[in-house]
Amino acid sequence: MADPASPVLLFDSGVGGLTVYDALREVLPQAPVIYAADLAGLPYGTKTEAQIAARVSGLLGRMAERFRPRLVCIACNTASTIALGMVRDVLEIPVVGTVPAIKPAAALTRTGTIGLVGTDATIRQAYVDDLEAKFAGGKRLLRVAAPGLVQAAEAKLRGEPVDPALIADVRDRLASLAEGARIDTLVLACTHFPLLADELAAAFGPDVAQVDGAQGIARRIAHLLEGQSFATGGAPNRFVVTGPIAGAKGLEAALRSRGFGDAEAF
Amino acid sequence: MADPASPVLLFDSGVGGLTVYDALREVLPQAPVIYAADLAGLPYGTKTEAQIAARVSGLLGRMAERFRPRLVCIACNTASTIALGMVRDVLEIPVVGTVPAIKPAAALTRTGTIGLVGTDATIRQAYVDDLEAKFAGGKRLLRVAAPGLVQAAEAKLRGEPVDPALIADVRDRLASLAEGARIDTLVLACTHFPLLADELAAAFGPDVAQVDGAQGIARRIAHLLEGQSFATGGAPNRFVVTGPIAGAKGLEAALRSRGFGDAEAF
Repeated sequence: MADPASPVLLFDSGVGGLTVYDALREVLPQAPVIYAADLAGLPYGTKTEAQIAARVSGLLGRMAERFRPRLVCIACNTASTIALGMVRDVLEIPVVGTVPAIKPAAALTRTGTIGLVGTDATIRQAYVDDLEAKFAGGKRLLRVAAPGLVQAAEAKLRGEPVDPALIADVRDRLASLAEGARIDTLVLACTHFPLLADELAAAFGPDVAQVDGAQGIARRIAHLLEGQSFATGGAPNRFVVTGPIAGAKGLEAALRSRGFGDAEAF
Repeated sequence: MADPASPVLLFDSGVGGLTVYDALREVLPQAPVIYAADLAGLPYGTKTEAQIAARVSGLLGRMAERFRPRLVCIACNTASTIALGMVRDVLEIPVVGTVPAIKPAAALTRTGTIGLVGTDATIRQAYVDDLEAKFAGGKRLLRVAAPGLVQAAEAKLRGEPVDPALIADVRDRLASLAEGARIDTLVLACTHFPLLADELAAAFGPDVAQVDGAQGIARRIAHLLEGQSFATGGAPNRFVVTGPIAGAKGLEAALRSRGFGDAEAF
């Protein structure tokens, strides 16, 4: 049985884990959480598979020993689709990943044409092919890479404006792939993208449903921790960050408003 | 300054680290050593780059936090040629790798034709191309994969016989690549292979010099630790192993005779 003070560790390259954290709080309000942001490694989407796998596995290996979490969540689609199984092989605790919400999107679409937006690394993964084959049979799944949106979400949280041309470009590339068919469902295959929900809604219009995996992941974590006890009034939520603390101001403010302490260097 | 009791961590997929350990003892007799064998991950040579990178980085991340070594040596050519830079990125201590001894071999050859034997994964690495371009200009470097020799070295240490056909096959494939030219220098690009030095000498004959990187690595470690103090009569050498302890009997005996304790599960 886990130590009641043992936290859940949420790991992301940056601010994307916030969407998973908010969903987790709904279903598991009492769990102490460590939010770990690998800002020194950002962005993941343009690295090689081996670089991402080594980085995530190495940092999580160190964090698992140092913080003794009861569970690790890789709150990043890029890292999860590449390295989830590899990280599970070397850690001794449960590891939950974040994978594109293709299954719920396939259940939701009426036009049968689904858009999927992710990083370069995510959209080319065999893991995504497998999800498509398993859950989107008979539907069209159109994938586009939008690496610029990761930085846009990071910048938005720092209070900077989002360039509408970035979002319009994603919409136009999807429309071009759709060849006249109408996309009515958009899979946000990166945990950063729900932070741009308003901008995406403005560009795609009110009839396109946005689907992300945060609620599903949160339910999965709650299920795995069912029956475990949590220290009351115990360990506070902590925020750890790779690279310079100064680069974490936007995320630090967002986490402070959720009851986290100041950023700590890792 | 490092804690005087802080060890040097030697990491290998199996018994190959012994050759590095023996060389290290010559130049740094007083350093406490942890020998970590990833027997659960053996063999590395047939895994993908991402799998090897994730495995080595994750295990070393955990070991760095748990054992607080002053330096890590990846005593495995496959892991080093793929993941050395990636592991350095996530650890906070010096990391030394083991790379094919192409430079000394190029200085040694008189016929100008050098053989290189390694695992499948090692011989295809860009790292090896770079070493060849840098140090073997004007020479011929002929590479062959010999993954079976890793298991043969592991088995030899357990007291099992080595199949001469395995070694003859390596010799014959190199001779075929040489197209009549005479190989006089053989790079052992896997830390397991010096354990088969007698078998290799019997197959290749006395005129072929075997070159490995163990002495060079040991000198590099000693250089990096110059001026550091070591606890006298302090921490004993430790042997940690992934996977079942029962699989480590041969290596455990070899390490016991070198002053290590019993195998401990990691």
